[in-house]
Parts: sequence; structure tokens; C-alpha cells
Amino acid sequence: MKATVYPIKHLRDFCVQVFLRCEVPEEDAMIAADVLSTADLWGIDSHGVARLRSYYEVLERGLVNPRPQIRIVRELPGTATIDGDNGLGLVVGPRANEVAMEKAEATGAGWVSVCNSSHFGIAGYYTWQALSRDLIGWAMTNTAPLVSPLWGAERMLGTNPISVAFPAKEEPPVIVDFATSAISFGTAEIAKRNHQTLPEGLMIDSEGRPTNLPEDVVEGGGALLPLGLDRTCGGHKGYCLNSMVDILCGVLSGANWGPFMPSFPYYLKQPSRSVGKGWGHMFGALKIEGFIAVDEFKQRMDDWVSTFRAAVPAPGTEGPLIPGDPERKAEASRKHEGVPLTEAVVGDLRYLAARTEIPFD
Amino acid sequence: MKATVYPIKHLRDFCVQVFLRCEVPEEDAMIAADVLSTADLWGIDSHGVARLRSYYEVLERGLVNPRPQIRIVRELPGTATIDGDNGLGLVVGPRANEVAMEKAEATGAGWVSVCNSSHFGIAGYYTWQALSRDLIGWAMTNTAPLVSPLWGAERMLGTNPISVAFPAKEEPPVIVDFATSAISFGTAEIAKRNHQTLPEGLMIDSEGRPTNLPEDVVEGGGALLPLGLDRTCGGHKGYCLNSMVDILCGVLSGANWGPFMPSFPYYLKQPSRSVGKGWGHMFGALKIEGFIAVDEFKQRMDDWVSTFRAAVPAPGTEGPLIPGDPERKAEASRKHEGVPLTEAVVGDLRYLAARTEIPFD
Repeated sequence: MKATVYPIKHLRDFCVQVFLRCEVPEEDAMIAADVLSTADLWGIDSHGVARLRSYYEVLERGLVNPRPQIRIVRELPGTATIDGDNGLGLVVGPRANEVAMEKAEATGAGWVSVCNSSHFGIAGYYTWQALSRDLIGWAMTNTAPLVSPLWGAERMLGTNPISVAFPAKEEPPVIVDFATSAISFGTAEIAKRNHQTLPEGLMIDSEGRPTNLPEDVVEGGGALLPLGLDRTCGGHKGYCLNSMVDILCGVLSGANWGPFMPSFPYYLKQPSRSVGKGWGHMFGALKIEGFIAVDEFKQRMDDWVSTFRAAVPAPGTEGPLIPGDPERKAEASRKHEGVPLTEAVVGDLRYLAARTEIPFD
Repeated sequence: MKATVYPIKHLRDFCVQVFLRCEVPEEDAMIAADVLSTADLWGIDSHGVARLRSYYEVLERGLVNPRPQIRIVRELPGTATIDGDNGLGLVVGPRANEVAMEKAEATGAGWVSVCNSSHFGIAGYYTWQALSRDLIGWAMTNTAPLVSPLWGAERMLGTNPISVAFPAKEEPPVIVDFATSAISFGTAEIAKRNHQTLPEGLMIDSEGRPTNLPEDVVEGGGALLPLGLDRTCGGHKGYCLNSMVDILCGVLSGANWGPFMPSFPYYLKQPSRSVGKGWGHMFGALKIEGFIAVDEFKQRMDDWVSTFRAAVPAPGTEGPLIPGDPERKAEASRKHEGVPLTEAVVGDLRYLAARTEIPFD
């Protein structure tokens, strides 16, 4: 696939300008652009500027509120529920995460559930924010249904990601960030575009039968399977983990959940029933100092990282990675060399440039 | 396999007497027996009275402290680290969980890490305790190494389980409880005993090569793979999740972690290096009232449960279960009909009866 390379600053600035044109206040536009461009910097191309057009479309059509009154609707010293007032998840998420971190700094543990939000970008952005404050960060979100429960024949759950991040001292931090489906919808889309099949056992068709044809999921209404796949390999565990994220983000916050999650962008086909407000997230922060001396923890993390780095490699591999390594590798290269964008993404950005009269290239 | 059936009360009482004989104080003996017998009641046979002999042996040999001075070594309103003074995990765990729940009741969120403990039984016992107090319960523990990281060729991590539980109103609670390896060591042991192979892709041998022979893991020093198995199916995600549990339980608390976790029982071969004190756990509790009205949450949980209960079943299945269903089904039967024990377990209990002169049958 042909790719054109753009400096990260150029992409971030373009995002800021597009959000400003949609009447997003400057501070919020800068935060939203930072979330998006960080995904590109880290190599998570599906969650970066590739989505800017979707965000633009929902703002332009008045389906998302550019100037939300984000407010705490309930709280205790260590908890809060935040109503995002139908704002961009890219704006609501960072605000809610900030509340969780402040509560952790004050009491040791801060947990904030969020309703009435939308797609919040990469979960790892939020947990990475916690590191410089000597906190352990958590972030989760529920998303539109694409995943079947084990033994189900329909889309009932999102790809519901979970991220947790731990700082180290000399070594890089451990940043766990993964969707709780076995594969991403993007993996099926790419296979379909390339006229490839996928390995057995990753997907089901709309009747609940195993399929290796990506079009059965991308167009045919089939579903991804949860992490672990079938009963033998632990599909019940992935279904449990995915459900846990759905309940914490959706049921607890007053947002929608499960099969009733709205599709994003919101002009897509929507579920028959509403069970809450928008999408839900959950942010958590734990103050390291509340458990162990910060320096001691970081030294112990260094030991953990170097121990796993030194593991005996399986034949044909270079050995285990440390969670966060792929993102660090992408950042090391893209920071200097720029971000390669596919023709389709460049096309979307040029479309936005033409619509908004903001120069892109 | 021949099984003899015993009333749950008989098993619990026998456990209490054995612990008392080992100089465990009465209150602690009753709690430890409750944790063990609850596993039997719920059908988690690997974690119930089948382990009583191991606990007896470590107490008898003075390897575990029957009367630990369990103490909080550091705390904030929402956090604590507890040193279990080398006590039984079955005693240290419930005490630490109680502290987490009390902190959640006071501030909204309570998180307690634990070092210097040992095998704590089933994680679901702890989270189930939170339900009647209108809390969301969390429990995790790290364990002796049996699992390889993705792309590793050696045992570096435990089966590190995670449990989270949510109360409902009319419907049963959702109790998530699973080990973060794809399969349990017990699954390999049973296959070996029955001279069976396992499906491809679940295990590696001591050289890191894929194997379907259970003896390669049970006797040959091979390893289980993390949930998700290989890279294609999401093995990096299971490795991340397992590592998260290891860091929260081990690195944060001051316990051992990863490949340096002591084997339990402690008279087995031990790791070359100690990086902390005993085994580690992490307990968390979130006060529902700190996020949403309790009754509203429980009604929303009822809706979640009945929605997933009504999912279209995949062909050849009866449809998705609700997390906690298998344990509820076992309890409904075993509560009245008793607990079936294998000959091997009955043999162990008779051995203990002979050693302690406590009547068993």
C-alpha cells in the first residue's frame, strides 16, 4: 500500500484547526488533537487522524456537542460519575481522567465512571498520563457491539479495551493496552480488502457458525469472538473480561451497554433500544506512595522489565516484548521521520481541507 | 472416576479441626475452612479440600506461620499494603479483603496490596464477600510460575487469576473469576493421567516448541501459554493481562513476582533468587453508591443479565452463560446432595485423619 509521510506536528496542528472550525474551544481542541496524534505517533493507525473525518462529521451534523458542560453528577472522596454532556470522548475522557488522578493524589485511589460520552481514542493515552504523576493508571471504555459472547450467535459486546500503566525508573514504563476481542474489526477489514481469509476460529457468521471469511463479519453481520476464542482455549475468560469492562463503563455510569451501545459515528444504524446516555468509560488511578515508596517501586519495576527482557526466546522469535514496546518503537521512528498515512486517510484529510478551507498539503 | 459424596458441613468441620490442630486460632480456622469448602460447594474441586493436605504439610513443617501478626505497613484513606507475616493465604486474604471493603465504605474506593502471604484459595470467594455490602469486589493473586510470556520459552508467570463481582437485584450476581493462562495446570494433569493429548497450541515444551503432550508440561518443565495463545489469536493480550496481575500483586506489594515466585507448598523446589516476601495479592472494592444509586445499579444489572441470558445461541449450544452460572449450578446441587470427592482426595483426607486423630469417616 502506498503511504505518504507527514510530520506529527503537521497532523496535530491540522486536527486542532479542524476541531476549532467545529466550534470546539481552543483548549479542548488541543487536547483532542493530542489524543489523536499520539495514536499516530505510537503506530496505532486505526485510532489516529484516520478517524478525524468521523469526528468532524458528527460535530458538523450536530450529533455531538462541541461545547459540553462536563459535570460531576455524584461523588465521594475516591469516586465520581461524570456526565459528558454528549461531548467528544476525546475531550470528556481527558477531563474525567484528570478527576480520577486528582482523587488518587488526595486519597490514594480515584475511580471515575463516565456516561454521555463517545469514542475516546486510545486507552493507553490516559494511563500514560498517570505515569509522570507517580500513579498507576487505568482506563477502559465500552464500544459499539461487534463481539459475540462465548456460545452466542450475535454481536452483543464491543471490543471493549482495557489499559493499565506502571512507571519504572531507568527502564521504560509497562503500558498494557489491548482490546478484549481476539482480533480487531480492522484486521477483518484489511483481510477483506486484500481478498484473504483469516485463520479458523476467530469469527462467526450471522448464524453463529465459525467462518474464516472476513466479509461475513465486515458486511454480513457476523461477529468477532472474544479473546480466548472457544471453550477449550479460554473464550469464556475473554467473554468475562469483556463483560467486566462493559459493566464498569456502561452499567455503573448510566451509559448504554452491550447490544444497545450506539454505533459511532452516530449517523450509522442505531440500536432499537436506549438503556442509558451515550458511551461509557471508566478511569482509575492508584497512588504508588499509598502502597510502597515510589523509588522502591520503580526499582522493582526495572528488575521486572529487565528480567522479562532477558527471557529465553521461543524458537523463531526474538523473545518476549515488554508491554508498550511496539508503541515505543513506532514513536522512536515516527517522532523524527514522520507518520506514514495510507492514500485513503490522506484522501479523507484532503476532503476535510476542502470542506473547511484549512490547508493540509 | 469413582467418587464418594460428603455433606459440605462435614468437609468444612473437618477442615476447621485440622487447622485447629495446627495451632491456627479458632476464628482463623473457621475462615480458612470457609474459603476451602466454598470452592467445593461451587464445584471448583482443584481449590477445595483437595488442597487441605498441602496446607497441613506447610503448617506441620513450620513453613507457614499459624498465628501471624497481620499488619498494615503503609496506608492512605483509599489504600494499604498489608504484610501477612507468612500466614496462610486463606487467613491473610480475608483480612486484607476486609480492609479494602472498609476503605471503600469510607471513601468510595479501597485498594489493598498484600505481601508475605501464600495460596489464598479461590479469588471469587473474596469478590463474593463484597456483594452483600453493595460493593463491587476485585481480587487478584500471583502464583508460582507455570506460564510463558508470548514468544518466551520458559515458565515466567503464574496462572494469576482475576475476579470481579457485581451484585444484581432479582437476577443472580455477575461473578467473573478466571485464571489468565489459557488452560489450567490441572487440565494438563488430568489429560496426562488419562493418557490423552491436548489440542494444538495450548502448551510449549521446555525448549519453547509447541506441544500437545501434557507430560511435557506436567513432568518435562514445559509451560502453559497465556490466554489468547499465539500472536494471531491474541496471546500478547493474555500475557499483558497476566503481567498486570503479577505487577499489582507482586511488584507493588513487596512480594515476589514472575519467575521468582516460591512454589507452594514450600517444600517443593524453590527459585534461585528471592525478590520479595512470599506471595502477593491485591484486593479492591468500589462503593456503588459513589457512582450511582444502588437500586438503580441493581435494576440495570438485572437488565444486563436478562439481555445476555436471552442471546441467540450459537448452533449446538444452549447459549451464553452469565459469569458465575457454573458455580451457582454446582452449589444448587451440592448444597443438598453433598460434594463428590475423588478417591485420591478421600485418601488424602483419611491420611490427615490418621495423622491428627480427627475422625473423618
